[in-house]
Amino acid sequence: MPPFVARLPVRFSDVDHAGIVYYPRFFHYFHVAFEELWRARVGARAYSDLIDGTAPPFGGAAGRAQVPAGERERIGFPAVRAECDFKAPLRFGDTAEIALSITRLGGKSITFRYRVFRAEPRQLAAEGAVVCAVVDLARFVAVAIPEHVTAVLQDLVEP
Amino acid sequence: MPPFVARLPVRFSDVDHAGIVYYPRFFHYFHVAFEELWRARVGARAYSDLIDGTAPPFGGAAGRAQVPAGERERIGFPAVRAECDFKAPLRFGDTAEIALSITRLGGKSITFRYRVFRAEPRQLAAEGAVVCAVVDLARFVAVAIPEHVTAVLQDLVEP
Amino acid sequence: MPPFVARLPVRFSDVDHAGIVYYPRFFHYFHVAFEELWRARVGARAYSDLIDGTAPPFGGAAGRAQVPAGERERIGFPAVRAECDFKAPLRFGDTAEIALSITRLGGKSITFRYRVFRAEPRQLAAEGAVVCAVVDLARFVAVAIPEHVTAVLQDLVEP
Amino acid sequence: MPPFVARLPVRFSDVDHAGIVYYPRFFHYFHVAFEELWRARVGARAYSDLIDGTAPPFGGAAGRAQVPAGERERIGFPAVRAECDFKAPLRFGDTAEIALSITRLGGKSITFRYRVFRAEPRQLAAEGAVVCAVVDLARFVAVAIPEHVTAVLQDLVEP
Repeated sequence: MPPFVARLPVRFSDVDHAGIVYYPRFFHYFHVAFEELWRARVGARAYSDLIDGTAPPFGGAAGRAQVPAGERERIGFPAVRAECDFKAPLRFGDTAEIALSITRLGGKSITFRYRVFRAEPRQLAAEGAVVCAVVDLARFVAVAIPEHVTAVLQDLVEP
Repeated sequence: MPPFVARLPVRFSDVDHAGIVYYPRFFHYFHVAFEELWRARVGARAYSDLIDGTAPPFGGAAGRAQVPAGERERIGFPAVRAECDFKAPLRFGDTAEIALSITRLGGKSITFRYRVFRAEPRQLAAEGAVVCAVVDLARFVAVAIPEHVTAVLQDLVEP
Repeated sequence: MPPFVARLPVRFSDVDHAGIVYYPRFFHYFHVAFEELWRARVGARAYSDLIDGTAPPFGGAAGRAQVPAGERERIGFPAVRAECDFKAPLRFGDTAEIALSITRLGGKSITFRYRVFRAEPRQLAAEGAVVCAVVDLARFVAVAIPEHVTAVLQDLVEP
Repeated sequence: MPPFVARLPVRFSDVDHAGIVYYPRFFHYFHVAFEELWRARVGARAYSDLIDGTAPPFGGAAGRAQVPAGERERIGFPAVRAECDFKAPLRFGDTAEIALSITRLGGKSITFRYRVFRAEPRQLAAEGAVVCAVVDLARFVAVAIPEHVTAVLQDLVEP
């Protein structure tokens, strides 16, 4: 399966005093791509609902019936490790294309792979990985990845 | 004419410790709407080209012919005044719709009006104004608004 | 009484593509000065404790005795209006001095006055005001300013 | 030699919707520590002067005499790789202590090591590394580390 791709213009304020995108912003771009994944696949409030425990699981009517509102977990994905190789600078005026795939869908953690391309002329600008724990935010402890989360991410796992 | 409208999801990192969009971010939303205006009407690099003096004016072939590359001004729009009334908080999961219009297209300055709506359920979240000087960035002095800039903004002037 | 002053270096990432501090950052500088006020006068966790309701009021032992832990309000100061006049640009390498005073300590709102100076050579860079409601965050409704908050801010009221 | 340490309060706006410091901010903290190093050791404008080529090298009068103003290089340190392990979350109210040392001072690149501690109660929150190229910003090509830069960083190299 192809990765999920989010397109994002470099913002006027994304650059630093050297005139290129401030390197911590690339990790922000990674996160925005992850947010866009939930918006595109489930809906505008899907990710916030997941974190806040304010909505039924999105795995369909059956799933919804099985989890009473008061007992829904508040699921978050705190990063436990992040890394990135920077290949070419991005500048204001460029459009970033962020490709998101998954290299490991573990029991209680997920490893995401991100590649950031300058759209035009096309060039790989950065390539990184983020390992996220899957956490019950009420207790801040790792938990098994809920099935309705796996359902959203499964096809992004690299072969 | 209707205002220009940019849609922007509230980002995971836009909120503050009180759980609502950090109020300085609303001014950032204003600026992003201004950036999107140039993208939508002229092209992805229009605004950066304007600032950097790296491209012909976008008023058509006639304009291009009259301004040699080496003599192009680097035009910027530094804010000289900004104000905003905050009507309702935005939260992660909301989508912001930013409506941009112009209340005054003066000789050397422009007054923009911005309204930020929560898309669903629809509610006015903030209403503000930004007065920008039109500046030759090489000398950082106010200059008359170039015609090719007026051409892009003219129809947004409120009656 | 003199205003409270916070000193803050302009950061490498505070500038925008035009090479000057991105104007929404000035409102961030305002907020940082407000955070520093609490740190300097009460303690590093004073402001977060106020918002989270996790600590006794800081008005002394008497105050502490009167408010049981479970009944403490979570007090926040959402901005209802913000405005700023920008007088001179700040650049990376500059140090900002942010002077905070109060022009109105009302029943349920506070009007702060902020002036941002470039330290060296000294110049007024921006002058603004922020009107904050005083809000019970659990219910998000305006409440009377608690006495232990007034005690911290009282001397900053301009004559 | 001990590392250089910068103290930095977690800001109201540094947290994300999950209530902890947004992980890309840790890389920003790294950079702020690097900026503070230059401020502490050379002066408030040292780093911007280095990047802009606007000041004499800071290695003393002899160095100054040897480099005419118009021929000064504009030196920057773009990140070519960054990585971080996140050990414990930081929250608003915490103070971060960022320890900066150098694990490799190479010919044309420098590897920095950063550890972020929560000050009270003391706990390692994150540990990372950033590999920076040393670049002539006018040409955006790697150059040998200038001696006046080495002089500032030398004692931070880990044994």
